[in-house]
Amino acid sequence: MSRAFNFSAGPATLPEPVLRQVQAELLEWKGERASVMELSHRGQAFIDCAAAAERDLRELMAIPDDYHALFLQGGATTLAALLPLNLAGPDQVADYVITGHWGEKAIENARPSIRTHVAASARDSGYASIPPRDQWRLTPGAAFVHYTPNETIHGVEFQDIPDVGDVPLVADVSSNILSCPIDVSRFGVLYGGAQKNLGPAGLTLAIVRKDLLGKHGRDLPPIFDLANQASNDSMFNTPPTFAWYMLGLVLQWLKAQGGAAAIGQRNARKAAKLYSAIDGSGGYYRNPVATNARSRMNVPFFLADAALDRPFLHEASAAGLLGLKGHRALGGMRASIYNAMPEAGVQALVDFMADFLRRNG
Amino acid sequence: MSRAFNFSAGPATLPEPVLRQVQAELLEWKGERASVMELSHRGQAFIDCAAAAERDLRELMAIPDDYHALFLQGGATTLAALLPLNLAGPDQVADYVITGHWGEKAIENARPSIRTHVAASARDSGYASIPPRDQWRLTPGAAFVHYTPNETIHGVEFQDIPDVGDVPLVADVSSNILSCPIDVSRFGVLYGGAQKNLGPAGLTLAIVRKDLLGKHGRDLPPIFDLANQASNDSMFNTPPTFAWYMLGLVLQWLKAQGGAAAIGQRNARKAAKLYSAIDGSGGYYRNPVATNARSRMNVPFFLADAALDRPFLHEASAAGLLGLKGHRALGGMRASIYNAMPEAGVQALVDFMADFLRRNG
Repeated sequence: MSRAFNFSAGPATLPEPVLRQVQAELLEWKGERASVMELSHRGQAFIDCAAAAERDLRELMAIPDDYHALFLQGGATTLAALLPLNLAGPDQVADYVITGHWGEKAIENARPSIRTHVAASARDSGYASIPPRDQWRLTPGAAFVHYTPNETIHGVEFQDIPDVGDVPLVADVSSNILSCPIDVSRFGVLYGGAQKNLGPAGLTLAIVRKDLLGKHGRDLPPIFDLANQASNDSMFNTPPTFAWYMLGLVLQWLKAQGGAAAIGQRNARKAAKLYSAIDGSGGYYRNPVATNARSRMNVPFFLADAALDRPFLHEASAAGLLGLKGHRALGGMRASIYNAMPEAGVQALVDFMADFLRRNG
Repeated sequence: MSRAFNFSAGPATLPEPVLRQVQAELLEWKGERASVMELSHRGQAFIDCAAAAERDLRELMAIPDDYHALFLQGGATTLAALLPLNLAGPDQVADYVITGHWGEKAIENARPSIRTHVAASARDSGYASIPPRDQWRLTPGAAFVHYTPNETIHGVEFQDIPDVGDVPLVADVSSNILSCPIDVSRFGVLYGGAQKNLGPAGLTLAIVRKDLLGKHGRDLPPIFDLANQASNDSMFNTPPTFAWYMLGLVLQWLKAQGGAAAIGQRNARKAAKLYSAIDGSGGYYRNPVATNARSRMNVPFFLADAALDRPFLHEASAAGLLGLKGHRALGGMRASIYNAMPEAGVQALVDFMADFLRRNG
């Protein structure tokens, strides 16, 4: 038995050196005579570990000082419900730009708390493109504009940050955070689960411009008020310490890889290689997304003959290529090629695809 | 270097055999050629793992079929905010019995969502006792009665389940879940973080009588509606898979120990030994809690001379006894002796306490 290339959409593959370090120090972490997951989050050892992770996150993403970096729980869906409560009063309007499944989920979780407005939606195209910016119907004075820079299921990614003027831009970056450099100062909030590019499931990041918090005027349970998490260094209650520690190790690995710019270049090469294999297959494999909206992270593709899906998956698994089954909403295949997927993994996939085509084409 | 006895209040010590198994299979879990934390929560391997943990939880706690067992995120504090939203309309009253810090936090997180009523509070006693049941002023027809069977900080534990008639009893069992047999059928909801008796931080359990959900009549974000988690097997969104897997291993370990009855007897012996050492010290060590309200899980104690606190902690650490510093709200010492603390650990602690007294008494 040996480790395979795992194209799972999330939870997803992690850097092997990180896993090896976790394994080595699982029972005794540093000089603590206990596992990191057995230590109090109020003890100095864990506080130092947590602070180091925040420092590295700020360095890697070049997060300005006027932003909080919060380490939370509940997944992006929980934040999709909490952010409207924190950023707006019940009578304010927020605009949503919907380019896939996760945008739909975000607005569903906002509707009970604010007045939502769909400023643009690619639903009619089957979420295979991004509505041009000049067709968005933004609400003047909206509390925020929400969008999903990368849609994990539909494989649709914005190539640029949209200009929405002075309205805070709120982005669910679950599936593309730290996959390339991004100008944080263009956003009001960046949020997302860690389980795709940055660590195991169970940790949720929120990078929030400080002036946006504490103004909602609502009577919220204290645990729902992100200002409380901010003023308590994300330890208003017990945080998911092990996931936080692992995120820190992944960030150190990212720094060793050369940071956001270097990983962004590698991710671009990986995506180019895979799309090239799909586009060069003479229609045997097909990606349905408009070329200017293709995701560098999640690449859905379909075999011309869906009857070959099962043999494809079966043989791929035998060849050491896992997690390629498409989302149940779309069928077909999907290769998620996050930061921790090495270029050799993508090469192995395109080699397999070419071989499968040769044998079954 | 070697592992010490760790009396941390949570995150807390875990069974060493569980940690060794996690370590052994960290990079390749079963035949999956990946770490368990890298696998999709929608894949059969993880679904089987999650279902096995639920089965073992149901078996160990003898959870009746008319209860959901939910595997959530956010900690008990998040549930303290979510449960009122799920169990009652905004005009309904819920009664709170407050016997320590966590009861206070629970009612704070309920107040914005329902009409709360303090049916009883031990605040005036400094949370060193439990208000007698016949002094509780319960509200007829309340939506629920909330209490904290074991208060982690104050070391106060109910010895029996209070009778509140037909009103659903809601209990935060973060620090005593599965520490002894409990009659689940007496409760409407049992909820708590896993990070004390059952696993790492980042997983929150809620055992909920099925008929209580889906009746709130509120317009809630779907992610806040526990009925959605129940109908999605706690996978309405990505769950904290690694913590869930580890909980499963801890439950298997608990079964190997003989289950709730056997661990309950062991826990009773551990607590008796420690309280005996405190009470037999001629006042050198002191536990302030009424004897009929003493916790079997969290034992706060104070040295008669607080100037000796620092040497006590320093020497305890040197003797391989960690995490004994009391909560910052109380000072002094606290020994948390959850399921995974072996009897040998408590013996080592009482031996050290006797030796320290001899040398400094």
